[in-house]
Amino acid sequence: MKLLVKDIVSFLGEDLQGVKGAVCDTDYVDNVADASHTNATTLDWINKSKQDKQQIAESSAAKVILATPEVVYSEQLDAQAKILLIVDNPRKEIAKIIDKFFLEKPLSGIHSSAVVDKEAKIGRDVFIAAGCVIGKCVIGDGCIINANVVVYDGCILGNNCLIQAGTVIGTDGLGCMREKDGSLIKFPHLGSVKIGDNVEIGANCQIAKGVLSDTVIGNGCKINGLCFIAHNCVLEENVWITGDTMLCGTVHVGRNATLFSNVIVRDQRQIGEGATIGMGAVVTKHVPAGETWVGNPAKKIEK
Amino acid sequence: MKLLVKDIVSFLGEDLQGVKGAVCDTDYVDNVADASHTNATTLDWINKSKQDKQQIAESSAAKVILATPEVVYSEQLDAQAKILLIVDNPRKEIAKIIDKFFLEKPLSGIHSSAVVDKEAKIGRDVFIAAGCVIGKCVIGDGCIINANVVVYDGCILGNNCLIQAGTVIGTDGLGCMREKDGSLIKFPHLGSVKIGDNVEIGANCQIAKGVLSDTVIGNGCKINGLCFIAHNCVLEENVWITGDTMLCGTVHVGRNATLFSNVIVRDQRQIGEGATIGMGAVVTKHVPAGETWVGNPAKKIEK
Amino acid sequence: MKLLVKDIVSFLGEDLQGVKGAVCDTDYVDNVADASHTNATTLDWINKSKQDKQQIAESSAAKVILATPEVVYSEQLDAQAKILLIVDNPRKEIAKIIDKFFLEKPLSGIHSSAVVDKEAKIGRDVFIAAGCVIGKCVIGDGCIINANVVVYDGCILGNNCLIQAGTVIGTDGLGCMREKDGSLIKFPHLGSVKIGDNVEIGANCQIAKGVLSDTVIGNGCKINGLCFIAHNCVLEENVWITGDTMLCGTVHVGRNATLFSNVIVRDQRQIGEGATIGMGAVVTKHVPAGETWVGNPAKKIEK
Repeated sequence: MKLLVKDIVSFLGEDLQGVKGAVCDTDYVDNVADASHTNATTLDWINKSKQDKQQIAESSAAKVILATPEVVYSEQLDAQAKILLIVDNPRKEIAKIIDKFFLEKPLSGIHSSAVVDKEAKIGRDVFIAAGCVIGKCVIGDGCIINANVVVYDGCILGNNCLIQAGTVIGTDGLGCMREKDGSLIKFPHLGSVKIGDNVEIGANCQIAKGVLSDTVIGNGCKINGLCFIAHNCVLEENVWITGDTMLCGTVHVGRNATLFSNVIVRDQRQIGEGATIGMGAVVTKHVPAGETWVGNPAKKIEK
Repeated sequence: MKLLVKDIVSFLGEDLQGVKGAVCDTDYVDNVADASHTNATTLDWINKSKQDKQQIAESSAAKVILATPEVVYSEQLDAQAKILLIVDNPRKEIAKIIDKFFLEKPLSGIHSSAVVDKEAKIGRDVFIAAGCVIGKCVIGDGCIINANVVVYDGCILGNNCLIQAGTVIGTDGLGCMREKDGSLIKFPHLGSVKIGDNVEIGANCQIAKGVLSDTVIGNGCKINGLCFIAHNCVLEENVWITGDTMLCGTVHVGRNATLFSNVIVRDQRQIGEGATIGMGAVVTKHVPAGETWVGNPAKKIEK
Repeated sequence: MKLLVKDIVSFLGEDLQGVKGAVCDTDYVDNVADASHTNATTLDWINKSKQDKQQIAESSAAKVILATPEVVYSEQLDAQAKILLIVDNPRKEIAKIIDKFFLEKPLSGIHSSAVVDKEAKIGRDVFIAAGCVIGKCVIGDGCIINANVVVYDGCILGNNCLIQAGTVIGTDGLGCMREKDGSLIKFPHLGSVKIGDNVEIGANCQIAKGVLSDTVIGNGCKINGLCFIAHNCVLEENVWITGDTMLCGTVHVGRNATLFSNVIVRDQRQIGEGATIGMGAVVTKHVPAGETWVGNPAKKIEK
């Protein structure tokens, strides 16, 4: 796949702060790669966090490099006829370019082995992979549902969601009460799961339905694999949850909060807007907006 | 669905301590709901733990309310012609009523896409959903097996079990020994999994088979999603395990014990009858009956 | 199944240090069992770690016993005409014997309900169970893929791997960056998963593909159920990971390391060769070769 540099320039639009070096109409890249596999036609980039940006640019095997403004067009770069595409955040831009030009996406369609309830409402341009079991639910336009996913009756997915393989959406939670003899009475679940637009959920997760009202996952949330979102949780938009994390029942997570891996949050607790929860934290209290908490039990730290 | 109040009275039987207000033959309810969705025909209830029970009763939009004896039939309730059904634990009774009258349950039958070994013994009134793979095993009467569940050869499920989607029952455990060069020899597993009656297992769990004898899950146990029950664990009856919990090999859990979420219990340990293990606990020692342990490593606390 | 003692002797080969008692051509065993189910034709064994080996040998109901050299052929054993097969590690030898003679293994073949991409390269003597979804990938000779496993496009499995039910191999990782408004940009994943020979992966795991290069699992690794191996992790050979463990992105684990259950390792961290990580540990730093670390956060302990 040849991607012309002038097409990258066009795609970057206002994010492009400038170009250093001469661009010919025929200049192209045809791959992205990590440092050890970079070649002349790789589209390379230099992370903002690197100390030695100038040297990385000068020693890269690639002709075309996304870089921040502080990289100067030195004699050495000139001698190599390199092209610097200047942006504020090269890693973010390379991500967008890969997603647009290099990532293979499945064609829409429902695999013949998927079992989709005849009352399900499936949007346009939806991909449902082999082995999925989709109940009486709503799947928005442009969703990609990978293999062996199960969506129970009543769930609603917005547009452009991506659900990775093996995940289960809409199973019962399991709140119980004991009888005098110790036997367990489960509170039945009549609610459902309502997922917004542009949500990604990783592999082998469980998203439980609500008890009487719904479990809600807001627009733009990203949840990694093996996570457990219990009944009646409400995630506002753009919450990022990395792998193996569990939210107990009725947890509320504010917008733009980030929960790193293997976190557990006690039921009824609130994580404030923009808060950060560290890896392995056991959260037993409300976490105010913007704070960072870590540990078991989790406590506030200064960033 | 109209549910007559006189039929609720009949269903409650001995649990009903009395009725306050007049019941007509035609009085009915047709829904249950959370506080923000209650209407005139909701069957409402007031949790024992609430402080302001009288006020909740008087301000509820619902005509029919399950309440404890301390709610008095005030002038205000009389003026609204309300009906109080007096019970010891309203939340427990509403759970039973929902389960009986409001919860839609799957019709029995085996979905055409499920793969059931011809030597499997399937009881009466069993539901096996799409995508299940059921080996040479025994499934008791009235079981509900949701989508994409896998049951390996040799497993036995009692009557009226509910298995949520994606769970795997009867996989190998993975106890290993190292050779001198570091390579790993796995101890093979010849045992199986034996599950009692009225057991619920949540989504995407793994229940491992025993090594030589069986892994045993007693009658009435309730296990939430993403749990890992390792080889040769024995759970006595009515054990409640909430999500994301792991029992290592040969753990013994006494009857009526409760393990909250994201707990791990070391192999060979015993959790005594009626013990409680707190969220996120790392249990490395035996826990005596009736005690509550929390933390990493877990220690006893006074309740 | 009758297994002649002389065939066991032959199978043990150089591992057999000697035989105590007389072996007839017709002597046989026909089962292995735990202590409470041992009978005359059980092949019994005495773990190295037992204190009272002599007494166990003399009181075993079995005629044939794998034992260490310190068990003497007493008058009592002679009177019972017992046969002691002397080896250095009876538990290891019984594991090999069970695997060879007593364990039922699936016949090779691809179940008709499995969905295998027509561009997949499937080796000889491979078993692919019902409900599997296998993308454009390579599956080596002798692999056993249990039910409902998903392997994404591009993954490579070596020879003689065993994948337990419900596991997902090759899903995306989920590293994100935030835009100024908080919305999340996911870094796309172009890499894959490369698994060596003789690897076992337990049920309902997620093994994520690499971002630009591959996630690598070396020869002989054994990973138990519900584990999460994130993008670009590299596991050298013979790493043993027990259940419910998570390795964040780009973790490197040296050969012969052991990670016990419910461990989490922070991204970019290195676990040295032969290191041991205790149950429930939260590893935030590099762990040098040969050390043992436990706790949250994990710290070195003396063994």
